[in-house]
Amino acid sequence: MHSEEKDRWRIVLDCPDRRGVVAEASTTLSSLGATILDAQQHLDPDSGHFFMRYEIARDAHAQDVSWSEEHLKWGLQELANGRGWAVRLSEAHELPQVALLATKASHCLVDILQRWRSKELPCDIACVIANHKEMGEYAGWYGVPFHHVDFQSQTKAQAFEEVDDLLNEHNIDCTVLARFMQIMPQWMTEKREGQIINIHHSFLPGFVGARPYDQAHARGVKMIGATCHYVTADLDQGPIIEQEVIRVSHMDSPQDLRRKGKMCEREALGRGLRLHLEDRVIVHGAKTIVFH
Amino acid sequence: MHSEEKDRWRIVLDCPDRRGVVAEASTTLSSLGATILDAQQHLDPDSGHFFMRYEIARDAHAQDVSWSEEHLKWGLQELANGRGWAVRLSEAHELPQVALLATKASHCLVDILQRWRSKELPCDIACVIANHKEMGEYAGWYGVPFHHVDFQSQTKAQAFEEVDDLLNEHNIDCTVLARFMQIMPQWMTEKREGQIINIHHSFLPGFVGARPYDQAHARGVKMIGATCHYVTADLDQGPIIEQEVIRVSHMDSPQDLRRKGKMCEREALGRGLRLHLEDRVIVHGAKTIVFH
Amino acid sequence: MHSEEKDRWRIVLDCPDRRGVVAEASTTLSSLGATILDAQQHLDPDSGHFFMRYEIARDAHAQDVSWSEEHLKWGLQELANGRGWAVRLSEAHELPQVALLATKASHCLVDILQRWRSKELPCDIACVIANHKEMGEYAGWYGVPFHHVDFQSQTKAQAFEEVDDLLNEHNIDCTVLARFMQIMPQWMTEKREGQIINIHHSFLPGFVGARPYDQAHARGVKMIGATCHYVTADLDQGPIIEQEVIRVSHMDSPQDLRRKGKMCEREALGRGLRLHLEDRVIVHGAKTIVFH
Amino acid sequence: MHSEEKDRWRIVLDCPDRRGVVAEASTTLSSLGATILDAQQHLDPDSGHFFMRYEIARDAHAQDVSWSEEHLKWGLQELANGRGWAVRLSEAHELPQVALLATKASHCLVDILQRWRSKELPCDIACVIANHKEMGEYAGWYGVPFHHVDFQSQTKAQAFEEVDDLLNEHNIDCTVLARFMQIMPQWMTEKREGQIINIHHSFLPGFVGARPYDQAHARGVKMIGATCHYVTADLDQGPIIEQEVIRVSHMDSPQDLRRKGKMCEREALGRGLRLHLEDRVIVHGAKTIVFH
Repeated sequence: MHSEEKDRWRIVLDCPDRRGVVAEASTTLSSLGATILDAQQHLDPDSGHFFMRYEIARDAHAQDVSWSEEHLKWGLQELANGRGWAVRLSEAHELPQVALLATKASHCLVDILQRWRSKELPCDIACVIANHKEMGEYAGWYGVPFHHVDFQSQTKAQAFEEVDDLLNEHNIDCTVLARFMQIMPQWMTEKREGQIINIHHSFLPGFVGARPYDQAHARGVKMIGATCHYVTADLDQGPIIEQEVIRVSHMDSPQDLRRKGKMCEREALGRGLRLHLEDRVIVHGAKTIVFH
Repeated sequence: MHSEEKDRWRIVLDCPDRRGVVAEASTTLSSLGATILDAQQHLDPDSGHFFMRYEIARDAHAQDVSWSEEHLKWGLQELANGRGWAVRLSEAHELPQVALLATKASHCLVDILQRWRSKELPCDIACVIANHKEMGEYAGWYGVPFHHVDFQSQTKAQAFEEVDDLLNEHNIDCTVLARFMQIMPQWMTEKREGQIINIHHSFLPGFVGARPYDQAHARGVKMIGATCHYVTADLDQGPIIEQEVIRVSHMDSPQDLRRKGKMCEREALGRGLRLHLEDRVIVHGAKTIVFH
Repeated sequence: MHSEEKDRWRIVLDCPDRRGVVAEASTTLSSLGATILDAQQHLDPDSGHFFMRYEIARDAHAQDVSWSEEHLKWGLQELANGRGWAVRLSEAHELPQVALLATKASHCLVDILQRWRSKELPCDIACVIANHKEMGEYAGWYGVPFHHVDFQSQTKAQAFEEVDDLLNEHNIDCTVLARFMQIMPQWMTEKREGQIINIHHSFLPGFVGARPYDQAHARGVKMIGATCHYVTADLDQGPIIEQEVIRVSHMDSPQDLRRKGKMCEREALGRGLRLHLEDRVIVHGAKTIVFH
Repeated sequence: MHSEEKDRWRIVLDCPDRRGVVAEASTTLSSLGATILDAQQHLDPDSGHFFMRYEIARDAHAQDVSWSEEHLKWGLQELANGRGWAVRLSEAHELPQVALLATKASHCLVDILQRWRSKELPCDIACVIANHKEMGEYAGWYGVPFHHVDFQSQTKAQAFEEVDDLLNEHNIDCTVLARFMQIMPQWMTEKREGQIINIHHSFLPGFVGARPYDQAHARGVKMIGATCHYVTADLDQGPIIEQEVIRVSHMDSPQDLRRKGKMCEREALGRGLRLHLEDRVIVHGAKTIVFH
């Protein structure tokens, strides 16, 4: 009944709560000839902020509306402008450009490349950037451009300038730190706020900082985990998107924890990235709204 | 900002999909002076059916609307009538009457009574009905009327008539089979369709029928589970509301499985019942829509 | 084939590793007329310590051995003495005496009482001690002596002396802090080292300290948990026995987290306590060996 | 303290229960100069069968024993022969030869190849065999020989003869059906009993047979899963090694279930295969003993 993927859009709205916001948003969509496939709304009682996410399609049976994408965009902007709402419109068929940043660990990198190749991630992997050359082989397998950025023979500040230039060249919408073991400078996290996703190899806020698996082994926990979050200037403190855990025991060495933890890392990252790419995540202060 | 629990309502709508249904529903609510706290919509692509759930409150700032509950009801009925929609309106402060049916196992019974006493379940436990007298002690502790129905000295048909009379006397809205080991007659499941909730002690559809833990032990599975579902004439086939699982091993005897399985049973039942009581579950054919 | 529960024993051995320890232990058991039902051994590579747990029964077919429990005890003590091993022998039918300490929250208390009544916990619940009188009703239901210790009209030091006297009077082997909201003095945790079990309402080491559910809400985590651990002088730092987690979302208020967290708390505590009572937990420094 | 991986062995023993078996096994190991690193024993009360698994190393400090691997083998065989025990000795550094069989789905294949390359699986991947040519690219990336067996232009019986010949040529110890969509003939499952591992894309015994994700969607379950099991003549009935589950909802289409199920499939297969390769799995009738 509904139109093809290429005639689908996702809309995310964000506004101070008052009576009638759902009515205004949905009436506008209907008047523009759009039919709602999926919708979720949430009021945050602490801040009094209201969040809406719509998946819409063109109503093929609409005789009364002269449909065009420009008209849809214009209509939504009109809706938002007059009221001071934030609005985000994504065409489901226009794929965001994603860059993968890595160091030496391959499990998250390969997992995302393989999910992408299997059409499980609605994006284009535009490039892989790494501070070690080993990862180039994997990029090559999947036919993705690879850039090695040298963090040894230049300053860290210079290296990150180089990374940023590469992200610009590739028109990157979303940067994934797939176990990238370098701390980003503040100017970069601020410039690309809400666009950089990291996987932290612990169940935050437990074991912040370095070597979380060794910390977990020393503490004798019975579960370990991983956390997918947006990168902010405040290390390990960015808004959490997704988490995953797995049971461990006294028999597990730190090396066993690292091996078992890989499953959590790639699962949390794979799911978190997909949620982000489908416009299901809204950052709200230090936290996220995630419309599953 | 928002009004008290006593001024909150839940609305569930169910209609064939077409453009504008969200707009019509939300515009109606706004015009009736209601503000939306939480909303979810879902289109089932197979059947082309559209489902909506709203949590609303009276907008205390509305000067333009003369508010009354009767007016709200009337307005929603108007909305639904003209369009052939199904509508369900629940006042959040009007507690459904729940009956618990049990046999000899106490873990689900005590768990629900304790959740209810701790104000975790939005309902009144109106009575406990059992085919064994042992459960009377637990009902007594929690101050709930207890009825023993004798399934030995009368026919099963007569016994179920007696159960049904008791449900009528207590004006029961929802009947929970808390490990009630008697198969309900078809007339009763049909009369109370969508109102009887069972906990099956297996991860359905695995191990249908009797003694599922012994079946699981014989098969050597590595996880067992429990399933909370609506009761239909077709045994173990009713629409599933919630499921839970737990890991087991070769060291577990059938008795160990029964003990471990209890956790799954009471968790799946406790969560499933709460979802039902909050009007989050919509039966759609053999399946459920569950708005978490 | 095997003898009844009353002829079963559990043996836990703990020694520096060297070749032949399993051979010596199992040969001794065999020569004493015991047959092994279940056994687990573990070498901790960091400390070079070796741990053994045996479940044994009298071999009813042994013609060559004149069996007596005294002889078994003597033989094991001989084994351990000469070698400087630590040994612990428990008769499976001799139930440890357990005290439950509570404040106002009932979910963990009722859960343990109900598991105990259902014969799921191999112990006697000797008494309930609380710093609020409300919990007396639950103790009464289950026929367990209740002691109210007043933490208001006397000093905390005096109150804990009173608690300790009660534990002595009841010959308590294991003290369970079932959401007991008072910090134990150091002398008490040291005197009863490895005998006091606490349930912490967070997935440690995340959210140490007060109000962990509010901390979790503020941080926006996607899972919450609970931790069952031995109490040491170092608050929230004792060796971890068991942990449990559950998924949460942006829709959950701090109150929802508290409600959902209860499941984790009682599960982690119920499982952890059972592991302890079955002599499956060995404290080794800041960590535990848990033979499932 | 302990010797290198190359001086480690794994021993699995399997015998009718009687007093003294642990003593005899461990005394023999000690007399042969072996020190026990890890040991587990289990008595199956139904069959009266006893199972033992030891991880051992040469005791470097043993002055009294003239060590050789031949001597170890001879000693263990002596132990077993006289008593009618089954014994299995594996050198931890001698890697089993593994063949991967695939059709068109790549997720399990790539996952195992990547785990193997990351040294997470103690085996050699000797070859990939597939009834479609697409999988050849992945084998090529990882430098593994690829064989395409044509199931179209010859009979199925002929094709399986070809597969069997390839397994022989590569001296395969363990065959992994990584989503291989062909039913093996009985002669092959019997010839390689306990050596063929399959991943079934459902939480068995739910949804046996074809298209389990479509079955799961039709039934409206709230969790789906995957099952790693040994292949026997009885389809989907072989002894279960490992299982994994994930939550799903009414929003998931059959295609979503397939995507989410992939995580369960590769996790259950990856973990199950590792357990098998580390000699942690003992088949006992229709079930398995798994020493984690």
